[in-house]
Amino acid sequence: MASFKIDLNSDIGESFGPYTIGLDEEVLKIITSANIACGYHAGDHNTMYETVRTAKGNGVGIGAHPGLPDLQGFGRRHIKVDPEDVYRFVTYQIGALKGFCHVHHVAMNHVKAHGALYNMAATDADVADAIAKAVKDVDHNLILFGLSGSELIRAGKNHGLTTASEVFADRTYQPNGTLTPRSEKQAMITDPNQAVQQVLQMIYDNQVIAVDGTAVDIEADTVCVHGDNPHALKFVEQLRGRLYEEGIDIRRVGA
Amino acid sequence: MASFKIDLNSDIGESFGPYTIGLDEEVLKIITSANIACGYHAGDHNTMYETVRTAKGNGVGIGAHPGLPDLQGFGRRHIKVDPEDVYRFVTYQIGALKGFCHVHHVAMNHVKAHGALYNMAATDADVADAIAKAVKDVDHNLILFGLSGSELIRAGKNHGLTTASEVFADRTYQPNGTLTPRSEKQAMITDPNQAVQQVLQMIYDNQVIAVDGTAVDIEADTVCVHGDNPHALKFVEQLRGRLYEEGIDIRRVGA
Amino acid sequence: MASFKIDLNSDIGESFGPYTIGLDEEVLKIITSANIACGYHAGDHNTMYETVRTAKGNGVGIGAHPGLPDLQGFGRRHIKVDPEDVYRFVTYQIGALKGFCHVHHVAMNHVKAHGALYNMAATDADVADAIAKAVKDVDHNLILFGLSGSELIRAGKNHGLTTASEVFADRTYQPNGTLTPRSEKQAMITDPNQAVQQVLQMIYDNQVIAVDGTAVDIEADTVCVHGDNPHALKFVEQLRGRLYEEGIDIRRVGA
Amino acid sequence: MASFKIDLNSDIGESFGPYTIGLDEEVLKIITSANIACGYHAGDHNTMYETVRTAKGNGVGIGAHPGLPDLQGFGRRHIKVDPEDVYRFVTYQIGALKGFCHVHHVAMNHVKAHGALYNMAATDADVADAIAKAVKDVDHNLILFGLSGSELIRAGKNHGLTTASEVFADRTYQPNGTLTPRSEKQAMITDPNQAVQQVLQMIYDNQVIAVDGTAVDIEADTVCVHGDNPHALKFVEQLRGRLYEEGIDIRRVGA
Repeated sequence: MASFKIDLNSDIGESFGPYTIGLDEEVLKIITSANIACGYHAGDHNTMYETVRTAKGNGVGIGAHPGLPDLQGFGRRHIKVDPEDVYRFVTYQIGALKGFCHVHHVAMNHVKAHGALYNMAATDADVADAIAKAVKDVDHNLILFGLSGSELIRAGKNHGLTTASEVFADRTYQPNGTLTPRSEKQAMITDPNQAVQQVLQMIYDNQVIAVDGTAVDIEADTVCVHGDNPHALKFVEQLRGRLYEEGIDIRRVGA
Repeated sequence: MASFKIDLNSDIGESFGPYTIGLDEEVLKIITSANIACGYHAGDHNTMYETVRTAKGNGVGIGAHPGLPDLQGFGRRHIKVDPEDVYRFVTYQIGALKGFCHVHHVAMNHVKAHGALYNMAATDADVADAIAKAVKDVDHNLILFGLSGSELIRAGKNHGLTTASEVFADRTYQPNGTLTPRSEKQAMITDPNQAVQQVLQMIYDNQVIAVDGTAVDIEADTVCVHGDNPHALKFVEQLRGRLYEEGIDIRRVGA
Repeated sequence: MASFKIDLNSDIGESFGPYTIGLDEEVLKIITSANIACGYHAGDHNTMYETVRTAKGNGVGIGAHPGLPDLQGFGRRHIKVDPEDVYRFVTYQIGALKGFCHVHHVAMNHVKAHGALYNMAATDADVADAIAKAVKDVDHNLILFGLSGSELIRAGKNHGLTTASEVFADRTYQPNGTLTPRSEKQAMITDPNQAVQQVLQMIYDNQVIAVDGTAVDIEADTVCVHGDNPHALKFVEQLRGRLYEEGIDIRRVGA
Repeated sequence: MASFKIDLNSDIGESFGPYTIGLDEEVLKIITSANIACGYHAGDHNTMYETVRTAKGNGVGIGAHPGLPDLQGFGRRHIKVDPEDVYRFVTYQIGALKGFCHVHHVAMNHVKAHGALYNMAATDADVADAIAKAVKDVDHNLILFGLSGSELIRAGKNHGLTTASEVFADRTYQPNGTLTPRSEKQAMITDPNQAVQQVLQMIYDNQVIAVDGTAVDIEADTVCVHGDNPHALKFVEQLRGRLYEEGIDIRRVGA
């Protein structure tokens, strides 16, 4: 009998100074991998300290979540950056979070790029290579997260890294395996049951039904979930419930 | 026969984005310890990458140079920060520089606080303790630099760290062992021979003659030198020449 | 028959990029003067644009709320800045907000310093002078807000500015007329009725009863209120209600 | 007899905190329009204060030089920003510089976008419109600088602004009137005589010879020159000399 497992990851530690974003305490109780902002697009040394501690306390896998240097734009705006620059700021951000892993006596488990950097790394081979190389050079045991089928996953494998292919519960896919842009109407899946169903299919069949009805191959190591509002939290609980009922093992990648 | 040795340290990697400060290439050829800015008061991921590489190439000891979060003020303005905050931003900055040490396959050797943070740590026991604790928690093998006789040296010893007491060639001392504030007339030693002489006395006798003529006990593990202009560079060469003539071993602390 | 009036001011427009603080829409309906953050300690060009528009729409007096350059510390940390520097960054911030007043065809009414800068200006004559001079030089018609009895009020008068003495509803006073530091137990007035009573006494009698029972002279042109949570909002409504019952004219300073 | 005139503009006030860029004192003696950085891509309240004062002292036209929010990238990296955002940060930056014009009792003369924003505004009609609208709404008397033939010049005219078409002495042109990208070999004109000759032809004939030999129509109200190194300064003097010999009136746009 085949045994299935899945990781649930969420962006965490995105508060900054006096500003609070996200229900971090709550979501850290129900996910298995935390992508912790490192001070470039969000987060600061205080959030990083607290978040690593809380993630450790919940047994959640700790990951660096490097982003573009753009606090005001939350790392979501495309900035034309040199791959050399990417290599260096990813190194910087992973290093900074590692500092907090040291003081809390916990290992870092993975790296997931944030926002526009994540999107660039999905299709731009040079950016993808820069990220993968930085991860390898700082710590080749780190698991590299990336969009299933992306350049980043390819780059990670090229550099001999363990990779984790990421899928989305609440986003639709295009026939080529990329996400439908948010600007298009059918981009989001708002029905929780449909979202859960999509995840199950991706886990069981390694396939997703694209917006035009074609079946697209996909790898599903980890599902991106959100904890920025009570509604999102509730969906994660619902998803967890169904995964549990199905007997699918919910555990962090690499564990 | 007694054998004497001394370390020469300098602040390095203080450029930022399009802005250049310091003759880093030149000074890295004649010092033994580099205090590398980590992006809070100066420096960025590009300068850190380049500076760690060049320092390694010159066999110079690599140190983190954490500062207050104040690029505009270059970390020289006193900011009232909580010790808890200090602990965290020192952790962040050391961690970030460690990232670059990893990618360049070189060990970090020491930590020296910058500017106003350095000054606060000389007299404020809570700030000193926060810095020392962060250094210990991130990597207890790091050597903690601090003003000779300061609270920071005391805190480092309390936490079981190896410490390096720092002295100044071009600054005069007060009877209590602290530096004469720059706001006072006799604060600076402008005669190179006198500066060299002060260093030699500190190395040989563990004493410095304060501005009022009294002899003050001092420990001299490392001398702070500057590389921000040709004049400063020339003095370092002159100092090196005299130290060499005297048969004093010029080597990085811990080597 | 004497006629009484009072202004109600609140700090507004403190959101930044993806981060939201404050119930700005609600509080702008019940105050008469808005102190709008200008991008140094909080706020950005988007919040400034929106806040000036909304304040204008509600007929609320528009004020610049310059702060120290410290987003992470929200302008609440003391930074040792030169008065010359203060003059210039206050000029910058007022100018920036004026840009938005121009595009919205509305006049700026006042300036109130924020956080640590406000506190420094209360007791440091040089900082107070720098702020007052900047206000005068940018636009001498602007009304300068300051703690009643402070150096800032004095400096404003020296420079020929119209000043507005600010009082607090929810803070206790010391015999010398300054606020009881938040670090002390009796610093805050938590009973809404007592807070309202204190405001009424300050308006009617130009006096406040200090923590030791002595009556202290005070001028009450404007009351500082808060809109960062529903509880604070409710108090403002309660205060407005009592002021209305008393027949006290609630209007912005200078109107 | 036709009378010819030309403006010489240069980017100025790009230093920041401890960092110095540019020979501002020298170049301000030989140009007629200063584009002063406003704190987003370069410059700060101190440089703005000093630069407005020095420009005024030299009778140089004062212009705001708004840029993208990217100090580290010096505003040269393309950032995908919404036109609405552009409108607001241009408003902010013009307003801030106006503050310094007020304290120095001098009028602002023009606005020139910086770096990547300038390039975007040359070809992107929405960005161009946002800039032109901000300039008009803050002060419709400001002269809008833009690349000759660009969308920005078009947008300025649409909004009823006085525009100044900018040409380059040291850059070659493509047949469509745009600058040859710096990435191409023949992008730069390194021979000073050739550069001067190009300027003269643009002034006299309203034409420039593109890299393929075709004559392209161009308007030349202002020439962009540089003052960041002695070599650049010397070229400006050389250009001034020839313009003077030719009897061409060197004066700021609008004077």
